Amino acid sequence: MEFLQPNSKSVKKKIINDPVYGFISLENKLIFQIVEHPHFQRLRRISQLGLTYLVYPGANHTRFQHALGAYHLMGRAVAELKSKSVEISDEEAIAVRIAILLHDLGHGPFSHALENSLVEGLNHEEIGLLLMEEMNKEFDGALDLAISIFKDEYSKRFLHQLVSSQLDMDRLDYLKRDSFFTGVSEGVIGSDRIISMLNVVNDKLVVEEKGIYSVEKFIVARRLMYWQVYMHKAVLSAEFMLLKALQRARELSRAGLNVDANPSLGRLLRGDIHSVDDPDAFLRDFVNLDDNDVLAAVKAWTEHKDPVLSGICKRLVERRLNKVIVQSEAFSREIIDGYLERAQEYFGIDEADSNYLVFAESMSNLAYTPESEQIDILKKSGEVIEISKVAELLSFSSLAGKVEKHFLSIPYELRD
Amino acid sequence: MEFLQPNSKSVKKKIINDPVYGFISLENKLIFQIVEHPHFQRLRRISQLGLTYLVYPGANHTRFQHALGAYHLMGRAVAELKSKSVEISDEEAIAVRIAILLHDLGHGPFSHALENSLVEGLNHEEIGLLLMEEMNKEFDGALDLAISIFKDEYSKRFLHQLVSSQLDMDRLDYLKRDSFFTGVSEGVIGSDRIISMLNVVNDKLVVEEKGIYSVEKFIVARRLMYWQVYMHKAVLSAEFMLLKALQRARELSRAGLNVDANPSLGRLLRGDIHSVDDPDAFLRDFVNLDDNDVLAAVKAWTEHKDPVLSGICKRLVERRLNKVIVQSEAFSREIIDGYLERAQEYFGIDEADSNYLVFAESMSNLAYTPESEQIDILKKSGEVIEISKVAELLSFSSLAGKVEKHFLSIPYELRD
Amino acid sequence: MEFLQPNSKSVKKKIINDPVYGFISLENKLIFQIVEHPHFQRLRRISQLGLTYLVYPGANHTRFQHALGAYHLMGRAVAELKSKSVEISDEEAIAVRIAILLHDLGHGPFSHALENSLVEGLNHEEIGLLLMEEMNKEFDGALDLAISIFKDEYSKRFLHQLVSSQLDMDRLDYLKRDSFFTGVSEGVIGSDRIISMLNVVNDKLVVEEKGIYSVEKFIVARRLMYWQVYMHKAVLSAEFMLLKALQRARELSRAGLNVDANPSLGRLLRGDIHSVDDPDAFLRDFVNLDDNDVLAAVKAWTEHKDPVLSGICKRLVERRLNKVIVQSEAFSREIIDGYLERAQEYFGIDEADSNYLVFAESMSNLAYTPESEQIDILKKSGEVIEISKVAELLSFSSLAGKVEKHFLSIPYELRD
Amino acid sequence: MEFLQPNSKSVKKKIINDPVYGFISLENKLIFQIVEHPHFQRLRRISQLGLTYLVYPGANHTRFQHALGAYHLMGRAVAELKSKSVEISDEEAIAVRIAILLHDLGHGPFSHALENSLVEGLNHEEIGLLLMEEMNKEFDGALDLAISIFKDEYSKRFLHQLVSSQLDMDRLDYLKRDSFFTGVSEGVIGSDRIISMLNVVNDKLVVEEKGIYSVEKFIVARRLMYWQVYMHKAVLSAEFMLLKALQRARELSRAGLNVDANPSLGRLLRGDIHSVDDPDAFLRDFVNLDDNDVLAAVKAWTEHKDPVLSGICKRLVERRLNKVIVQSEAFSREIIDGYLERAQEYFGIDEADSNYLVFAESMSNLAYTPESEQIDILKKSGEVIEISKVAELLSFSSLAGKVEKHFLSIPYELRD
Repeated sequence: MEFLQPNSKSVKKKIINDPVYGFISLENKLIFQIVEHPHFQRLRRISQLGLTYLVYPGANHTRFQHALGAYHLMGRAVAELKSKSVEISDEEAIAVRIAILLHDLGHGPFSHALENSLVEGLNHEEIGLLLMEEMNKEFDGALDLAISIFKDEYSKRFLHQLVSSQLDMDRLDYLKRDSFFTGVSEGVIGSDRIISMLNVVNDKLVVEEKGIYSVEKFIVARRLMYWQVYMHKAVLSAEFMLLKALQRARELSRAGLNVDANPSLGRLLRGDIHSVDDPDAFLRDFVNLDDNDVLAAVKAWTEHKDPVLSGICKRLVERRLNKVIVQSEAFSREIIDGYLERAQEYFGIDEADSNYLVFAESMSNLAYTPESEQIDILKKSGEVIEISKVAELLSFSSLAGKVEKHFLSIPYELRD
Repeated sequence: MEFLQPNSKSVKKKIINDPVYGFISLENKLIFQIVEHPHFQRLRRISQLGLTYLVYPGANHTRFQHALGAYHLMGRAVAELKSKSVEISDEEAIAVRIAILLHDLGHGPFSHALENSLVEGLNHEEIGLLLMEEMNKEFDGALDLAISIFKDEYSKRFLHQLVSSQLDMDRLDYLKRDSFFTGVSEGVIGSDRIISMLNVVNDKLVVEEKGIYSVEKFIVARRLMYWQVYMHKAVLSAEFMLLKALQRARELSRAGLNVDANPSLGRLLRGDIHSVDDPDAFLRDFVNLDDNDVLAAVKAWTEHKDPVLSGICKRLVERRLNKVIVQSEAFSREIIDGYLERAQEYFGIDEADSNYLVFAESMSNLAYTPESEQIDILKKSGEVIEISKVAELLSFSSLAGKVEKHFLSIPYELRD
Repeated sequence: MEFLQPNSKSVKKKIINDPVYGFISLENKLIFQIVEHPHFQRLRRISQLGLTYLVYPGANHTRFQHALGAYHLMGRAVAELKSKSVEISDEEAIAVRIAILLHDLGHGPFSHALENSLVEGLNHEEIGLLLMEEMNKEFDGALDLAISIFKDEYSKRFLHQLVSSQLDMDRLDYLKRDSFFTGVSEGVIGSDRIISMLNVVNDKLVVEEKGIYSVEKFIVARRLMYWQVYMHKAVLSAEFMLLKALQRARELSRAGLNVDANPSLGRLLRGDIHSVDDPDAFLRDFVNLDDNDVLAAVKAWTEHKDPVLSGICKRLVERRLNKVIVQSEAFSREIIDGYLERAQEYFGIDEADSNYLVFAESMSNLAYTPESEQIDILKKSGEVIEISKVAELLSFSSLAGKVEKHFLSIPYELRD
Repeated sequence: MEFLQPNSKSVKKKIINDPVYGFISLENKLIFQIVEHPHFQRLRRISQLGLTYLVYPGANHTRFQHALGAYHLMGRAVAELKSKSVEISDEEAIAVRIAILLHDLGHGPFSHALENSLVEGLNHEEIGLLLMEEMNKEFDGALDLAISIFKDEYSKRFLHQLVSSQLDMDRLDYLKRDSFFTGVSEGVIGSDRIISMLNVVNDKLVVEEKGIYSVEKFIVARRLMYWQVYMHKAVLSAEFMLLKALQRARELSRAGLNVDANPSLGRLLRGDIHSVDDPDAFLRDFVNLDDNDVLAAVKAWTEHKDPVLSGICKRLVERRLNKVIVQSEAFSREIIDGYLERAQEYFGIDEADSNYLVFAESMSNLAYTPESEQIDILKKSGEVIEISKVAELLSFSSLAGKVEKHFLSIPYELRD
C-alpha cells in the first residue's frame, strides 16, 4: 500500500498503511496538502516517545504516525456522533480533523529536554499555533475554522473537546499506539468502543452510561502506561541526562567555547536568537531541528574536550544510564551533598560541574482531576453526571490526588 | 517490562518487551554482555529498512530489534530440534544464538547507499566479522564457536544453516518484523509453524513434509514483501537519491570543498581513510556512523551552495521524490539523453551534473534458486527431496528465473 | 456490546461484537428484521465447519457468524466501489448486502453428510432459495431485488459476482474466519486489501493491477486451508463416519426398526417425506433440524442394539476415528476386499454391513479454473486480463488441473 | 496442525492449534491419555459460556478448549517459578498441570440452570472429584498427586493456589479466552505478564511489586467482563428461561406426563435417580448429558402440549427473550403481583403457572474479598503485603462490598 505516490499528480484517495489501524485514508485534497507540507513532514523525524526506545526497543514511532492515527480516530468519532443526530457540517467535520492532525505541530525533538534548555518563553502549543497560522496563510485561510476549534474559540465547544479533553482523540490514539510499539500490551485501550459510546448533550461531549466500564478501563490503562512507560525510571534517567547535556553545551557555548552542532542548534545553544524578540527567526531554526540533529550532536560531543559534556554524552550513547533513586519525600540536603562530593572526587571536577552529574528532581502525576477537566456520563434517564460519582470501582480520591515522586539521579559509576 | 535496568548490578534474567513476540528473554550472562556492548548498542541507531519509512510510516524499527528477534527464534529452533533428538550441546546452543545475534553487526546506516559510495572494498559481512573478532578478543575467545558457525567452518553445518540459508532465523524474523511494522499484514509468515517443522537429516536442515504448504506460503509472502516493500518504487527512488547525494558530497569533498559532516563521515567523504590500507582506522570511523549522522548531514546539505547537492537533499527532506519509471528492458540511450537534456535545461546545469538527477539503474530478484541454496523436504518415507520437485503450486521455473527490472529516475519537477 | 437488546422496541442501530472484525453494524431496519427471523436465527445452531472441531478445537463458529461477517465485508466492498464512481443505488447496496446475508440460508447441519443421506433431490442452494422466497412473502416482496441478484438475474451482474465468484465476500469471510477459529493463522487473507483493490469494468468485477500479489496470496492461502483444514484426513474421517451412521440409521428405519430421533429427523430417516413431492412439508422438517439434533441422535445411537450403528456412533463420540489412507490412484479391489474381510472377521458382521465400516472414496480439488470462473486483473493501461496470464509465481497449469485423491477409511481397531 | 492424529499409534508430541495461544503442546504420555479419555472428550460438547452466544455470537468456545488453555498457562507458570529457584519436582510439575486440566471435569451442560433444576445434592466440584477418582482408578493411581493438589491436601500449598485462587491459571485463561471469543477486547488481560511476575514466599503465591499495575488491570478487566458478559441482562434472561423450562419439564415429568428427552435426561427429569443414594448411576447419566441433548430437548419441547413449557421453549429458540428489569432494591410484592396477573390474563394460565413466566431473582458480585482470598504482593524489600494496602487506584472498599442486584424477568409479550 503506497503512500503519496511520488509520480501521480492527481490521485483521488491516499491510503496509508498503519500497523495499528491497518489503513488510514486521506480523502480530502486539503488534508492531503497539509500532510505534504514540510511542517507536517517534519514530524516524521520527531519520535513520539523520545529516548524511551532505550528501554522499549520497539518505541521508535513518530509524531507523524500519531497525528495520522488521531486524525483517523477523529473521522470515526465524527461519523459516530453524526449517526446519533449530532449536527456536524461537512466544513466542521474537516476542520476538526485538521485540528487534530495539527495538534502536535509545535513539538520539537525531545520536547521535555529541549523546552527546559533551549526553547524558552514558548511552549509547544504556542509554537504549534504559530506554525498553523503560517500554514493558514499559505492555504489562504483554509485553516481558519480548524484553528478556531483548536483554540476553543468556536461556538460548538464539543468539537474542541474531541481535540483536547480527558477523552480526546489525541489520548485515544497515543495510549493505543504507545502500547502497541512498546509492546506493553496491557496499556491497550478499546478506542473503538469508547468512540462508539460518545455523544453530545448541551454542547458537551459525554459518554453513554453503558460505557462506564470502558472509561474505567481507560483510566486504569492510562495510569499503567504512565508508570510503566512514561515515568519509567530508566526513561527518566536518559531524558534528564539529555537535558543536562544540552544545558552543559549551552553553558559552554555561551562561554564562547566551540560546540559542534548544526547551524540552527548552534544558534539556540549560543542564545543568538530569542523566541520572544524575533519569533520568525526562532521558528526557522526551530523547524530546522529534529531528532537526528540532537542525537548526532550528542554523539559528536562524546569527543568534546570538556569532560563533563563528553562524559554525559558517552554514557548516554553507550547506554550506561544514571542510576535513579525514587522516593515519596524530597531528598535531604545531606544525601544529595554526599553524592555530589563523591562525584567531585571520582571525576575530579568542581562543585558547580558536579551538579550536571548528580541532581534531584521531582515529578507529579495528576491522573484525573474532576475539578478542572471532567468526564461526563450520560445516564439512560438523560441525566448527565460526572464519572467519579457513578464509577464504583475507582478510588477517585486517590486518583485525583496529586502523586508527587522525588528522584535522585547519580552516575552509573557511583551506583552501589 | 524493563530492559537492562540501569541500576541492578546482577540480575539473573533480562526480559525485553518486543511488539512482535511479546517478551524476549536474555537468559545467559555472556549474551547479556554482548547486548550491552557498544558495537551491539550501535544497532539501535541503524534502522532495518532505511528510508522505507517515507512510504510506510511505521517502518522505523531497527537492526537492534531484528537481531534480538532472530535470536529469540533461534532459541525456539534449537529447542525444537533438541526435542526431535538432534544433538546440540549447551555450548553449541549458545554459540548459534550468538551467531545470529551478531549476524548483522557489520551493517552501517543505509547500507545500500553507503556501500555504493563511501564504504568500498569491504561488504557488511566482512565488516561484521572484523567487529565480531574485535569483540571476541575482549571476551577472551568466548565467541570462537559462534564465529566458526557464522563462517560455516564448524563441523555441524546445519547450525550455520540456521544462521544463513533459505529458511534461516534471519529471514523468518525480518519478514515477520518488516510486515508488522510496515503494516503490510499479508507478508506475515508463520514462523512458529515453520520452526516446528524443522528437522536435521545427514547434517542438513530439512522441513518435514507436512510443512510444504507453510514453505510455499513463506515463499509467496517473501515475494510479496519483495515487490511491495523492498523494491517499492518510492523506496527505491528515495534510496537512490540518498546514494546520489552521498556521491555528490564525496565528489565535492574530494575536490576540496567544505561539506558539513561529523568527523568520521567527513573522513570517509574525503577519502582520508581506506578500509584496505588501515582497517582499524576505518572500523573506528565506521562504527561511529549511524542513521542520525547521515540524515543530519543530508538536512544540513539542503543549504549547501552547490545546487546539485542542495537540490537533491532538499527534495529528499521535503519528500518530493524522483519519479521512477520501471520496465523490463533497458532504457534506450535516446530516452535517457532526452531526460538528461531536459534536466540540464530546467536546472541550468551541465551534462556531468545532470547525471546526479537523471539516471538509469537495474535491479534483479532471485527469489529461489534450487541450484545454489535449496530447501529440502523430509518425506514421511524418510526420503529427502528438493522442494521444487514436490510443491505443486509454485511455478519454480518462473521463481528461479532471474527477474531483471530496469528503472529510470527523474526529478520530481520533470515528471509529466 | 450487546446484540439485539431483547427489551428495546425501537433501537436505531444494532452493533454485534465479532471476534474477527470487532464490531458489525446492522444499520437498516429490514436487515435487522431479517436477522431476527427464525430462518436466520437457525443458523446460530449450524456450525460452519461441521465436525472439524474434533481436530481444531476452536472451530465452533457458526454459519450465523459467517453470514454476518460476509454482510460486513459487503458493506465495505460497496463503499469502496462507490468511492471509485461505480454506480450503486441505495436500493442495490441494501439488496446485495441482503443477498450475501442470506447466501447460506439453505445449509442444514453437517451439509455434506446430510446431503448424501437424508436430503436428496435438493441442494443447499435450492433450499436456500425456497426459504428466501418464503421470507420474501412475509416481507411483502422487500427481498425481490436481493433474490434477483442472488440468482444472477439482475442486470448489473457485478453485484452477483460480489455474492458468488472467485473473489466474492463469501470466500473472503470464510477463509479469514475459518483461519481465525481453527488457529491456522497462515490461512489468514488480507480481505481489507483485496476489497480496496476491487473495481468494475464493463459490468465485471476486476482487481486492480497492484493487487496481483494479494490475489496470489489469497489463492495460496485458500489452497493451504483446503489441505490443512477442509480436507484434513481426520476431519474427512469423522465426516464420513457421520455419513455412514446416518445411512445406517436410514436403512434401519426404513426396515421398520425403531431409531431414536426427533420427529423431523425421524421422518427424514424413514423417508416419509420427499422434497420433490411435498416441498413445504420437507422445508418444515428441514428448518427444524440443527447440529444439536444430529449430535444428540448420534450419541443416543451409541446404545442402539444394531452393533454397526452403535459401533460407528461410539467411535465417533469417543473420538476413535477411522484411519484414513490417502493415495493418488484408486484403491484396488483386492486391498479394499482385504480390509472388508478383516472387518467382517473382527466385528463378526456380514459383508453388506462391513461396507459401513470400510469404504473407499475419492475427493477432488479444483483450485482455480480460468475457463469457468476467472479472476480479472485491470492493468494500469486500462486493459483487462485474466490473472493466470500475468501472475508469474503461480503455476496455474498445476492449479487448474483437477487434483483427485483417493482414500480408504478403515476402523480404528484395524489400523496397523 | 493436527491434533490427535487418529492413525498414529506412537507420536512423541501432540500439538493442538489454539486460536488464543497459537500452539498448545501435550508433551507427556499420561497427559495425552487423559485428554483422550471420554470424560475429558465430553468437555468438547460443553460450552464454556452456556447461552451467552445468543448475545455474543462468537462465544461458542468449550470447556475443552479452556481446560487445555489453563493447562498451557500452568506450564508457563511452573517454568517461571522454577527459573526463580522455587522448588518444583518433575512429578509435581506434571501433577499440577493435570490438576488444572481436570479442574472443570464436573461441569455439565448449562451448569447454572442444571444445578438449580436437575442436579441437586452435588455441585460441579464434587462431581469433578468423583470423576477424577474414577479416572485415577483406570490409570492405577497416576492421578494421586494431582488430586491431592486439587483438594488442597498437598504439603506445597502454593501448587493448589496455582489451580484455585484469585490469580489461578483458571481465571487467567477464562478471562482471556472469554474476551477473545465474545469479541469484548477490553477484557483481555496480560496473562503472560502476570505469570512472569509470580513468585513463592513461605509456600504462598505472591506477585512481585512491579506487577501491581498488571494486577489492578486484571481486577478491572475481570469486573468489566463480569458486568458486560457474565451478568449481561440478555444472557441472564436466557439462562433463567432455560432454568424455568427445565423446572417445568421436571414438574410435568414427575406428574407423569410424557416429556421427550434422551434416556439420561429423562431419568433426571423424572427423579428416578438420586445423586446421594446412587452416585454411580447418577454419574453415568450425568456424563451422558451435554449441550446438544439439552438444546435438542428444548427445541423438541416447543411442540409440547403444555403451553407453559412450549411457550418458554419457543421464545428461547426464536430468541424472543424475556425482558429483564434490574434495580438495587428488591422488587415489591405489588409490582411482581401486577406482572403475574398480567401474565395470567394474557396467556390464560393460572397463578401457579404464571410463576414460570414472571419471576424475581437477585444476583450478587463479590469482586475481591481480602478476608477470604487475598492477592499478596512481594515488595522489593522482601516484605509481603496484601494488595489493597498498596494499590492506590482501586477502591477496594467498594470492590470488597457485596454488590447485590435484583431483577425481574417478564415475558417478551408483556414488555412495554
